[in-house]
Amino acid sequence: MIYLDNAATTWPKPESVYQAVDQCMRKKGANPGRSGHHMSLMAGQIIFETRELIAQLFNIADPYQVIFTANATEALNLGIKGLLKSGDHVITSSFEHNSVARPLERMRTQGVEVTKLPALESQGVLPAQVEEAIQSNTRLIVLSHASNVTGVLNPIREIGKIAQDRGIVFMVDSAQTAGTFPIDVQAMGIDLLAFAGHKGLLGPQGTGGLYIRENLNLIPLKEGGTGGNSEFLTQPKICPDRYESGTLNTPGIAGLGAGIGFIFQEGLMKIREKERILTERLLNGLEEIPGVILYGPPRGIERAPVISWNIEGKEPSEVSFLLDKMFDIETRSGLHCAPDAHRTLGTFIRGTVRLGLGYFNTKEEVDQCLEAIASIARE
Amino acid sequence: MIYLDNAATTWPKPESVYQAVDQCMRKKGANPGRSGHHMSLMAGQIIFETRELIAQLFNIADPYQVIFTANATEALNLGIKGLLKSGDHVITSSFEHNSVARPLERMRTQGVEVTKLPALESQGVLPAQVEEAIQSNTRLIVLSHASNVTGVLNPIREIGKIAQDRGIVFMVDSAQTAGTFPIDVQAMGIDLLAFAGHKGLLGPQGTGGLYIRENLNLIPLKEGGTGGNSEFLTQPKICPDRYESGTLNTPGIAGLGAGIGFIFQEGLMKIREKERILTERLLNGLEEIPGVILYGPPRGIERAPVISWNIEGKEPSEVSFLLDKMFDIETRSGLHCAPDAHRTLGTFIRGTVRLGLGYFNTKEEVDQCLEAIASIARE
Repeated sequence: MIYLDNAATTWPKPESVYQAVDQCMRKKGANPGRSGHHMSLMAGQIIFETRELIAQLFNIADPYQVIFTANATEALNLGIKGLLKSGDHVITSSFEHNSVARPLERMRTQGVEVTKLPALESQGVLPAQVEEAIQSNTRLIVLSHASNVTGVLNPIREIGKIAQDRGIVFMVDSAQTAGTFPIDVQAMGIDLLAFAGHKGLLGPQGTGGLYIRENLNLIPLKEGGTGGNSEFLTQPKICPDRYESGTLNTPGIAGLGAGIGFIFQEGLMKIREKERILTERLLNGLEEIPGVILYGPPRGIERAPVISWNIEGKEPSEVSFLLDKMFDIETRSGLHCAPDAHRTLGTFIRGTVRLGLGYFNTKEEVDQCLEAIASIARE
Repeated sequence: MIYLDNAATTWPKPESVYQAVDQCMRKKGANPGRSGHHMSLMAGQIIFETRELIAQLFNIADPYQVIFTANATEALNLGIKGLLKSGDHVITSSFEHNSVARPLERMRTQGVEVTKLPALESQGVLPAQVEEAIQSNTRLIVLSHASNVTGVLNPIREIGKIAQDRGIVFMVDSAQTAGTFPIDVQAMGIDLLAFAGHKGLLGPQGTGGLYIRENLNLIPLKEGGTGGNSEFLTQPKICPDRYESGTLNTPGIAGLGAGIGFIFQEGLMKIREKERILTERLLNGLEEIPGVILYGPPRGIERAPVISWNIEGKEPSEVSFLLDKMFDIETRSGLHCAPDAHRTLGTFIRGTVRLGLGYFNTKEEVDQCLEAIASIARE
């Protein structure tokens, strides 16, 4: 089997990830940060170590500003719903995933004003567009680092600078870039960074998180037991307790720690470079197949390893089905939970076929995939 | 090591749980319900099978009314925040966990009226108390099935009948009973059942869920990608998609399915009976130790296998620490995230030592624990 759905969940994981999850359940299976007994402390230690690794990866000064969530979607909901109030204005783009677009739509019905900048297929959102859209009541700019449909990168650093200069909160959805692109919350002026644990960070499903800049106070999405300050009816003010009610996914977080450990061991730039080369190879091959239509940024521009394409006259769902059934190649077709992006690309409503490359893919797999696509295109 | 913190997280898990998590990550590691390729379908199958097992366990007619969450806390937040609106009245008790008390406090600040019935140490909440507290604007009754501090059981069936007769939504927090006490949402008149996956259901941490009665429409806590209906900016109306945005914790849910499978295999009543016998043995022993103060329902009354106690003149945290350090016995001390319960017991703010028994505990462990407590009490 050739797995090319890494933009949804990376697979396989490093062996150390499987081991960490298993060993955590078997040997450190107590509640972290609740009881004082030694298995509980060991579980708490796992959580803390993963928090530290995340802080290191994203240049976060204080690991306690990293909040664990079930996935990037929860992190984005927490940031958006926890920050915005009626009367606030938010700037976003037409290229966002539903995990941003839908919470914003909810807030719109509650009196929040939403400006959706038309992103360019070739370049994403331009800093000048953002600058122009700012109003006196702009409270938040929320953008993806890279599109999950085309891999196009937004100029995060430039937009972060604008946000910082204007005192506007800047939230970045790094679902497609965390673990494979350098992210520095301080240098990039990021106040809220949402990440998925099960994609580029190589952890298991059920993990993700949100970095919250110090002194940025959000209304928690979930309230309940936090292990500390149990005597109060309101959530504790301190991070991460304020946002992490209920028992955390300790085995998942153990696996996430192992995934990030693997990234540090290999080196982020080595991972990035391999994925870049595979992406180039795939794009080169796709360009040569008659009938293939490629979407997204033009060649030569840096992008995340996500490629959206179609075969003229064929339904993407049919192409994806044939790749699976006839060639054992796993891809994804449809809207990829980002309908606005497809409106921009002109591929609404049938969508595209998406190939998501990962560090464990090989050039042989890329070549086999190209042959398979060529064969389907010839039919 | 003797693990007696099962009320927080049960440990160990059946071997099949560890295996299911590992095999899911290694062999079925794609996104469930997103792509159409075969590994994604296998992941979707795992989710569906666990949903079916949960439905079977709780006598839920339609498995799609079971929503997966990260833990019971998230399920309780979803039920409470998704249902209540300004002007609504809710009835709860003074024995609830912070996962109920704190979301209710949040809703109180948003115009919801909260009646907190004084629960009795011996019997929990009486149906007559509930009946008396009902107002014309009562929208919700939310109670735990069993207290996480004393194990006292609320008369769920009787209160469910009252709620049903009056057209009031009835939500039950089964964190301490799911998997060890029979729960039948139809016979008990339960509209919303929150459960933890990592306690009596023997699954891994990071799992839990909410049963939502058909035609009961909640505002989702999280919005985003659901795999289906991607073209709309609002959440789909259908269950479970409406409430399950973002990638689910598939390995965790695989483990949860294995945990519930184990319960069906052993038989719930066999599990219940073993835990009952161990609890009796522990209570008998504790009663005989001079200086031990027991809290909770009197002997002879059915209870969950959770025992709160103190040693006269000693701090619970110190007792718990000594049990761990000197005897390798893992217990929990403090407020157990339920401050109101301790106000009722008169143990606020120092709390109690809590012993939470599980199916894998033995009578030898109970006896060793009793010897250790006697030895500490003698000091």
